[in-house]
Amino acid sequence: MGKENTFQPDWIEKPPEKGSYRSIFKFGDPNGFKHPNKRLFEEVKATFNLTDQDFLKKETEGEGQVNFSLPSNLEEKHIEYFTQVSGKENVSIEEYDRLKYSTGQTVEEAMKLRREVIGKICDIVIHPRNKHEVQEVVSYCNKNQIPIYIYGGGSSVNFGLLPEKGGVTMVLSTHLNKVLEVNELNQTATVEAGIFGPAFEEALNSAPEKFGVKKQFTCGHFPQSFEYSSVGGWVVTLGSGQQSSYYGDAIDMVLGIEVITPKGTIKTYDFPATATGPKVLDILKGSEGTLGVVVEVTWKIFRFMPGNRKYFGFIFPSWEAAVNAGREISQSEFGMPAVFRISDPEETHIGLKLYGIEGTILDKLMTMRGFKPMERCLFLGTADGEKNFTKNIKKKVRKICRRHGAIYLTVYPAKKWEPGRYRDPYLREDLMDYGILIDTLETSVKWDTLHKVHTKVREVIKSRSQTICMIHASHFYPQGTNLYFIFIIKESNLEDYVAFHKKVIEAIVDAGGTLSHHHGVGKLFAPWMEAHLGKNQLDILKAIKKYIDPNNIMNPGGQLGLD
Amino acid sequence: MGKENTFQPDWIEKPPEKGSYRSIFKFGDPNGFKHPNKRLFEEVKATFNLTDQDFLKKETEGEGQVNFSLPSNLEEKHIEYFTQVSGKENVSIEEYDRLKYSTGQTVEEAMKLRREVIGKICDIVIHPRNKHEVQEVVSYCNKNQIPIYIYGGGSSVNFGLLPEKGGVTMVLSTHLNKVLEVNELNQTATVEAGIFGPAFEEALNSAPEKFGVKKQFTCGHFPQSFEYSSVGGWVVTLGSGQQSSYYGDAIDMVLGIEVITPKGTIKTYDFPATATGPKVLDILKGSEGTLGVVVEVTWKIFRFMPGNRKYFGFIFPSWEAAVNAGREISQSEFGMPAVFRISDPEETHIGLKLYGIEGTILDKLMTMRGFKPMERCLFLGTADGEKNFTKNIKKKVRKICRRHGAIYLTVYPAKKWEPGRYRDPYLREDLMDYGILIDTLETSVKWDTLHKVHTKVREVIKSRSQTICMIHASHFYPQGTNLYFIFIIKESNLEDYVAFHKKVIEAIVDAGGTLSHHHGVGKLFAPWMEAHLGKNQLDILKAIKKYIDPNNIMNPGGQLGLD
Repeated sequence: MGKENTFQPDWIEKPPEKGSYRSIFKFGDPNGFKHPNKRLFEEVKATFNLTDQDFLKKETEGEGQVNFSLPSNLEEKHIEYFTQVSGKENVSIEEYDRLKYSTGQTVEEAMKLRREVIGKICDIVIHPRNKHEVQEVVSYCNKNQIPIYIYGGGSSVNFGLLPEKGGVTMVLSTHLNKVLEVNELNQTATVEAGIFGPAFEEALNSAPEKFGVKKQFTCGHFPQSFEYSSVGGWVVTLGSGQQSSYYGDAIDMVLGIEVITPKGTIKTYDFPATATGPKVLDILKGSEGTLGVVVEVTWKIFRFMPGNRKYFGFIFPSWEAAVNAGREISQSEFGMPAVFRISDPEETHIGLKLYGIEGTILDKLMTMRGFKPMERCLFLGTADGEKNFTKNIKKKVRKICRRHGAIYLTVYPAKKWEPGRYRDPYLREDLMDYGILIDTLETSVKWDTLHKVHTKVREVIKSRSQTICMIHASHFYPQGTNLYFIFIIKESNLEDYVAFHKKVIEAIVDAGGTLSHHHGVGKLFAPWMEAHLGKNQLDILKAIKKYIDPNNIMNPGGQLGLD
Repeated sequence: MGKENTFQPDWIEKPPEKGSYRSIFKFGDPNGFKHPNKRLFEEVKATFNLTDQDFLKKETEGEGQVNFSLPSNLEEKHIEYFTQVSGKENVSIEEYDRLKYSTGQTVEEAMKLRREVIGKICDIVIHPRNKHEVQEVVSYCNKNQIPIYIYGGGSSVNFGLLPEKGGVTMVLSTHLNKVLEVNELNQTATVEAGIFGPAFEEALNSAPEKFGVKKQFTCGHFPQSFEYSSVGGWVVTLGSGQQSSYYGDAIDMVLGIEVITPKGTIKTYDFPATATGPKVLDILKGSEGTLGVVVEVTWKIFRFMPGNRKYFGFIFPSWEAAVNAGREISQSEFGMPAVFRISDPEETHIGLKLYGIEGTILDKLMTMRGFKPMERCLFLGTADGEKNFTKNIKKKVRKICRRHGAIYLTVYPAKKWEPGRYRDPYLREDLMDYGILIDTLETSVKWDTLHKVHTKVREVIKSRSQTICMIHASHFYPQGTNLYFIFIIKESNLEDYVAFHKKVIEAIVDAGGTLSHHHGVGKLFAPWMEAHLGKNQLDILKAIKKYIDPNNIMNPGGQLGLD
C-alpha cells in the first residue's frame, strides 16, 4: 500500500467484524476497498490544513458490536403469521437484522451508526421466497394496517427504505432474484425484482449457454450502485446508468411490470407502444414503494457488442466550451455516446489525480498547450452499438470537440476510468474514519439553466471554507443534462452536516434544477416536493396513493411527500 | 381526368356546397381530392364484381343542406355567460356549427351524414380566444355541471370528440394556434395546443426568419392526419407520425404541458429527465379530454436537415422475410430509419398500382427475378439525421434486406409514396359515393405475436367475401411493431358495417394485439378497455378521473371506458 518515504494513513483493509455497526453502514462488498491514492490524500490534507499527524488516529470507526435492545413492537400473532408464510429461516426480529435492513447509504445514517445512534427501525424482517408470499404479506398487512417497507440492494441515498413507522421490512433480493425469461425475438428479459445488476448482466452476457438463444445481450443499465442495487429498485426510483445517454434511463427500459398492491395485483402489458390512455405502468414507475411491491420486471435488452465500443477523452479550455460541445453532440443526430461525462474545472483537477493522469505525458501536453488547472475540463466517453455507428460517433465527437477548442487525450483516460467506475463509494469509509465526509447531490437541468445552477450551487458549497466541490454532467439529452455535485468536507457534527446538506438542496431548487435527476425523492427530499411540483400535481399523486393504498401501509412516513 | 378509351366514374372534383352535410364529413381541404387511379379502379371493379355501369350513378352524396331543427338544450343564462366570455362571434348555437364540431372522421359518421341522420350533437360551440377563456369556461362548466368536449382538428376515428352528453364543444384550433417560443438552446418549441401540423412545421422550418434563431428545425411528427390535426390532439391521443421509428411517438416528444382541469391548472415542468416520482405529465398524455383541456405544449424539436435524407425501397419474396428483416434492422443498433414501412402481400399488390410501379421496369425486374404477386412484399423507407448516420443506415438496411432475399428497388418507390402520404384519406369520399367503404384499424404487436395477429385478423376480414385487405407495419421498435389494417368493402347497411367492424376489433384483441397503437380509444374502443387493461388498472384510471374531474364534465359518456 504505502509508497517509500511517504506516510499513508492506516486505511482499514479488513472486512468489518460480524455483528458490528460498521458491517451495516459499510458500502458494498465487505472485502471491497478503495483507498484515496497519494495525490488525493495530499489534496485532502492541503484543503483541510491537515498534516500526517491528523491521520494517526481514527475518529469513529463503528467497529463496536450491535447490542442495543429494542423489542419488536409487532404483536406475537403477526410474527407467527409471517413465520408461517415465509418460514422461520426467512423471518427475523433480531435487532441486528432489523437495523441492517432499515439502513440505506446516506452520510447521515453512516454518521449515526459510527456513533452507535439508532434511528427508526422496522419490527420484523421478512425474506419472501416468491411473489405469492409477497402477496400474502401485503394482503395481511393491509387488513391489519401494518406498514411495509421494501429493501432491495439497500443503496438508497434519501431514506427511501427507512421504516419511519416500523412494521415489516421485506427484503426482495434474498430469494426473488432470478432471470425468468430471455426472449430473443422480442429482445426482452423478465426478471424477479430483487435481482442485482451483476447477476442480471451476467445472465444476459451468457444467454446463449443459459437460455439457449443465439445472441449475447446486455441490460444497458450501469448505475454506480450497479453491484448493490436491484432491478426493482432501478424502476421504482427512476434510476439512470452511466451509459444512459445511449441506452436510456430506467424509465425508458422497463417494458412491463408486475406489482402487488393493497388493491390487488397489477400486471401491465408489455407492448412496444400503445395508445390506450394514460399508462398505469408510468404511474408505478417511480412510485418508490408507496403504491405496491414490484415483483417482476420485463426489461428491454440490447445486443452485447463490446468489440464495437469506442473510447475517447478530451480536454477543454473551459467549462463553457465543454458544455457547448456536450450540447452540440447531444443535438447533432448522429447517435449518442454511451458514457458521456464532462467534469467541471475542480472535478477535472481531482479527476486527473484519481485516474492517474497527473504527472503523465498527457498532463504535460495539456499544460504545454495552455490548458490551465482549475480552468480546463475533462470529457470522457464511449460509444456503443453497431460498428460503423460507433466509429461515426467517435469521428463526429472529435470534430465537435476540436471546434470547441479541445485536444484529444487518446483512449487512455476513459479506459483508466472504466474499471473503477463502481468503486468510488468505497472511498467514503476511509475518509470518514478521519472525520472527512464525501457526499453527493444531483439535479437535472435544461441547457439554458445549466450555468446558473452550476454557479449558484457551487457558490453555496464553496461558501463553506475548506471544501472540495466536484461537479460533472453525465447523462445527456438533446434538451439538457444533469449536474452531479460531489463535495468533500470536514465535519463531525451531525446537525451541522444536515444543515449544510439542506442548504445545498435549497440552492439547487432555487437555481432552477429539479429535485433529483436519478437518486429519487425518498423521505429526504420530500419536504420540497410540493413547492417543486406545485400543489395541484402533488395532490394528484396523493389521490392515486389514497386509492391504491387506502390504509397507507406502503412505505408510509413522508416518502415522496405523499403523507 | 378520364384517359382516352377508358371509362372513369364522374368522381366529384368540386368542393361541397356551403352548409351541406358533405361539407361536414368530407375529409380535410374542401378543395382536396384524390381519385382512385385507373389500376385501383379496375381492382375495385374486379373485387366487387362490378362493371362501369355500376359507377354511373352515385349512392348517397350528402349534398343536401343541413336544415334539421334541434334547439340547444342549454339554459339561456349559460349561453349568455359563454357569449360574454368569448364574444358573440366565437359562440354559436346554430345546428350546422353544432353538427360540424360534433363530427369526427369515422366511416360510421360519414355513412350517417350521407343519409342525413343526426346523432348526438353539442348544445353550443365556443372558440376560446386564449387560455384564460378556456379556464373560465372549464370553471363555469364545473360549477354548473355542463359537459365539455374538445375539438382540435376533428380527425378522430373513434368518436373521441363525440358530445355524447351534449353541452359545450370547445374548438381550440380557431384561436389557440400560435407558436409561442422556439428555444434553440433547449431545442424545444412551446405552442398553443390548437395549432395544426403544417403551421407548426412551417414555423420551425423558418425559425431563423421567424424567431431569430440560427438553425432550421422540424417537429418530427407527421401522422397521416398531419394537415388536419392539432398538437394538443397528438398529445392526448398518443399519436404516432410516419417517421416515428426515428423521431419517436408523440408520447416521447412532449416535454411539458399546461392543462386546465376542473381541479385547477396544471403546468408540468419541462426538464429533460427527473426522478421525482410518477410524472403527472404521463397521466395527462393520452387522457383524451377526460381530465382537462391541454392549452400549451412544449415539444422536443429536431434539426431540419432534408439534405441528409436517404430513400430506399426493397421487394421481399415473402411477408415472413420482410418481417424478419424489419426486426433485424430494429435491433441492430445502427440507428432507426425514419419512414419504415413494410406492406403485406395484398397491400404490396395494391401499392404497386397506387404508387405507379405496376407495369414499370421495376415491376418487370421483380417478376423476372421470381417475386410473385400476392407473395412479394414491399419495404419503403427513409433515413433522417446526420449525414454519415443516414448513409450508414441505408448501407446496413441494404445488407440486411439482401440477406433476407430482397432486391433493391432504387429510391423510386419511396419518392413516389412520399408526396401522397397525407392524401390517401381523400380516396374515401370517391369510393363511398358508390357504396364502397374504405376503413382502417390498427394495433401494436410484439415480434412473437405479429404473425398470429396478422393471420387471424386477416382471416376475419377476408371471411367476408369481396374484401380488399391491406396490412402494413410502419412504426418499428426493437421490441415489436404495429399492424395497420386497411379494408375495402362494399356495404351500404350501417348495422352490417358496424357489426363487421366490431368483429375485426375483436379479432385483434383475441389474437393478442393491443386495442390501439396510435388511433387512441375514444368511445369506440372503450367497451374493450376493461378486458384489455384488467379491472385493477382501469379502476386506477377511473380513480384519477374521479379525483381530477369529480363532476365528470370532461368528455363524459364512455370515453376511454372511464364512465
